[in-house]
Amino acid sequence: MNSFNKLKPYLDKQNALFTALTLFEWDNATKAPEKAIDNTSAVMGILSDEYYNALINDDVTFLLNTLCKEQLSALESSIVKELKNAYDDVRPIPQAEYSAYKALTAKASSVWQKAKKNNDYALFAPVLKEIIDYKKKFAAYKAKDRGYNGPLYDILLDEYEKGFNTQILDTFFNRLKDTIIPLVRMVSKKSDKIDKHYNELHYDIDKQREVSHRLAKYIGFDFTKGVMLESAHPFTTNLHNRDVRITTAFFENNLESAMFSTIHEGGHALYEMHIDDALTMTPVGTGTSMGFHEGQSRLFENNIGRSRAFWTPLYPQLQETFKEQLNDITLDHFILGINKSQPSLIRTEADELTYCLHIIIRYEIEKYVINNDFDIDLLPKLWNDKYEEYLGIRPENDSEGILQDIHWSCGDFGYFPSYAIGTAIAAQIYAHLKTAINIDDCLEKGNFAAINDYLKEHLHRFGKTKTTNELLSGMMGENFNPQYYIDYLNEKYTALYSSL
Amino acid sequence: MNSFNKLKPYLDKQNALFTALTLFEWDNATKAPEKAIDNTSAVMGILSDEYYNALINDDVTFLLNTLCKEQLSALESSIVKELKNAYDDVRPIPQAEYSAYKALTAKASSVWQKAKKNNDYALFAPVLKEIIDYKKKFAAYKAKDRGYNGPLYDILLDEYEKGFNTQILDTFFNRLKDTIIPLVRMVSKKSDKIDKHYNELHYDIDKQREVSHRLAKYIGFDFTKGVMLESAHPFTTNLHNRDVRITTAFFENNLESAMFSTIHEGGHALYEMHIDDALTMTPVGTGTSMGFHEGQSRLFENNIGRSRAFWTPLYPQLQETFKEQLNDITLDHFILGINKSQPSLIRTEADELTYCLHIIIRYEIEKYVINNDFDIDLLPKLWNDKYEEYLGIRPENDSEGILQDIHWSCGDFGYFPSYAIGTAIAAQIYAHLKTAINIDDCLEKGNFAAINDYLKEHLHRFGKTKTTNELLSGMMGENFNPQYYIDYLNEKYTALYSSL
Repeated sequence: MNSFNKLKPYLDKQNALFTALTLFEWDNATKAPEKAIDNTSAVMGILSDEYYNALINDDVTFLLNTLCKEQLSALESSIVKELKNAYDDVRPIPQAEYSAYKALTAKASSVWQKAKKNNDYALFAPVLKEIIDYKKKFAAYKAKDRGYNGPLYDILLDEYEKGFNTQILDTFFNRLKDTIIPLVRMVSKKSDKIDKHYNELHYDIDKQREVSHRLAKYIGFDFTKGVMLESAHPFTTNLHNRDVRITTAFFENNLESAMFSTIHEGGHALYEMHIDDALTMTPVGTGTSMGFHEGQSRLFENNIGRSRAFWTPLYPQLQETFKEQLNDITLDHFILGINKSQPSLIRTEADELTYCLHIIIRYEIEKYVINNDFDIDLLPKLWNDKYEEYLGIRPENDSEGILQDIHWSCGDFGYFPSYAIGTAIAAQIYAHLKTAINIDDCLEKGNFAAINDYLKEHLHRFGKTKTTNELLSGMMGENFNPQYYIDYLNEKYTALYSSL
Repeated sequence: MNSFNKLKPYLDKQNALFTALTLFEWDNATKAPEKAIDNTSAVMGILSDEYYNALINDDVTFLLNTLCKEQLSALESSIVKELKNAYDDVRPIPQAEYSAYKALTAKASSVWQKAKKNNDYALFAPVLKEIIDYKKKFAAYKAKDRGYNGPLYDILLDEYEKGFNTQILDTFFNRLKDTIIPLVRMVSKKSDKIDKHYNELHYDIDKQREVSHRLAKYIGFDFTKGVMLESAHPFTTNLHNRDVRITTAFFENNLESAMFSTIHEGGHALYEMHIDDALTMTPVGTGTSMGFHEGQSRLFENNIGRSRAFWTPLYPQLQETFKEQLNDITLDHFILGINKSQPSLIRTEADELTYCLHIIIRYEIEKYVINNDFDIDLLPKLWNDKYEEYLGIRPENDSEGILQDIHWSCGDFGYFPSYAIGTAIAAQIYAHLKTAINIDDCLEKGNFAAINDYLKEHLHRFGKTKTTNELLSGMMGENFNPQYYIDYLNEKYTALYSSL
């Protein structure tokens, strides 16, 4: 038995426990009864410890050391490399501190929730401070382990997006700011002219469910390998490539919300459904990174889902479903409506153009608090000042300011930039699809299979066996390049708003 | 640290893994996409091996030996005793044989399904033979381990109902046959006079869902601690006492089916919801036995759910919901309808009176094949002969004969008798409730809380810390006594059918 075969039982056990935890999370967000959570959390805590033990133990340590000297197949190498990543992310942290940190974040989300509800930053501040201190301490352990001396925030960025660091992101974000801020000013002056009143009329929830189901099916979501339910906040999860699950949230007075979240989560889901059978249920059997995943969901939601070509075959049916509300809204009007851009305070409700400014603000604050000593009490002011500077609007309270996102209460520092990276990846893939398969033509003809086949063949099926840059350069001979995104925004919004 | 505290991590791990497996099973039966099963089964196989390893290992062996000599609290003693039962049920079987057997039963259900669909007993026979051989071999291992020399079938019965054996069941079933067979003959002559045509009219599924939801709530099912979904075959499962789940199946042309399966599963669910917080998520934190569980579900479904007192406050609302179909059906007519009894071939569709005859047939066949050498090809004839003898009807093919139940394909020999034991337990509890709380009065007044409070206090909260006999004698000073059931059937059917 070679060493890789000896590793196999550990990989299987890690996967089984991780899959069980995923199912519990899904179930908690969709169907579990409200009073179940305390008992169920105890069960999840034990499964999570078991996962830790299956990942970090003497046998795995020994096998990882042995395997790096052995001849392995390409797939085996990828798996070992990915396992090593996961191992190195956790091993430098003493188990007692890791458990204490997990207990802290388990508690923190409910403190955050309460603080947000009561607009009480002071309640959340000490917990947030403690989480940040842990993140810095853990990053320092990892830096030491790797002999790395640069800014600690790079360690956190690397967890979500291998190969990305502050240097790359500073360049990216500075270029973005230079482009978007003037564009936002131009567009927001004109966008008042777009009447979007129709979107806030009453839309029957059952009919919205039908529309979302139809949209998911239309973009290729395979209901024999997937499930679509409802939850408070839409999300995607997967047990393996034949069990991918999305949720949608429906609102009676908002037609767009559920439609675009279905297309967005559908994009995530298709990526997971397209992963090779040989990879699924191994450490490389899922999307290569947070950013690349977001690249797929945003490609579907924005570049594709907000295009005229996409709606050309679909809009008549939508109009038919909601005759009363959409009868007088032409396709042109609808396209302007779904692309109406205006600075706003809440990230999750932001439009395609202003979205990245929300991310840049979080990135700058994260970089600052991780790399420097800071005063936790001054963060709300820093947040508000940045909103005023970049978006021209200032939050009136912390609930719609620094308390709006759940991420920091979960310890997810370094995660936000993935949204922006994903947005840029989406634009880059979209630019390529224009020439490679004439995507507008596919969309107008309703030929979604051509798009999915191409994405599966050139990007999706590889899972984590290739990095973001390897995937992009493999497909189009070019690494990550945010210029595509900048060009896309300029062209799109100039063209769209030229008539106003 | 005393030895019990050393055992705790193993108990927690067993519970966490068992709970995860339960959630997967629930999910497979309700929401999982159809193509997920192969991958998900692989995950479940690994979790199931982990469960085995958490139960059977040198530490647990050592601790069980140590703990039997130590001073323990009452709860600790119960937990250790129950763990020892689970341990002794599995440990005598060599792990390789246990795995091979599990692989066999995993495959067998789909073979059975195909055989049933195609009325092809010959397809299933060799698999069934192999399963029976394993069951006999495993029972022999356990018999040897316990120094037991009696009939092997007793070993299997003991797995589902501690303290019950062929001697007790032979006596029980012989008395039952003596009573039911003449009663069935009397009743079936008269039951043609009951017009039940109304039950097969068209009943809107959405309205049926409302009715089932209302019924579940009415009998005390707490939706903050429970979930109700749909599946092909109704069942109940639980993650712990604050997460209890039932399913119902709805049929357009059958009003009774979903209503009574909701009440039945609701009875199972209430038992689990009522278990003490101190016991849940421990080895004693669930219903004490299969039979006692069935005692609760049948108490609700039959003794309570088919009584006039139960429907007195509820029937007008049902009539209102299904005006068109039930307008001309009086309460008296409806009560006769839900208690119409006629010999039939399919166990799951059998009425309250004939149901146990189906069980007796299975019991006699199981006892025969486990305790004797037998010819697998002769079983269908044996089955059909018994149906003719006891029920006066003969299956025309094996699909509606020996192939009708899934149980044997899962290796569940010794399970069927629990249904009959449960039915008798239900009648015994019901007899007690008549005097203890005047149950008819509670039902007529819609005071379900009084019934649930009583059951919780005297039976349900104890989980597995008491056996069936301890629970019954604790409540009413008398062990299991099937005479209550025999009296109940005689009185009920004589009274009901006297007018016909």
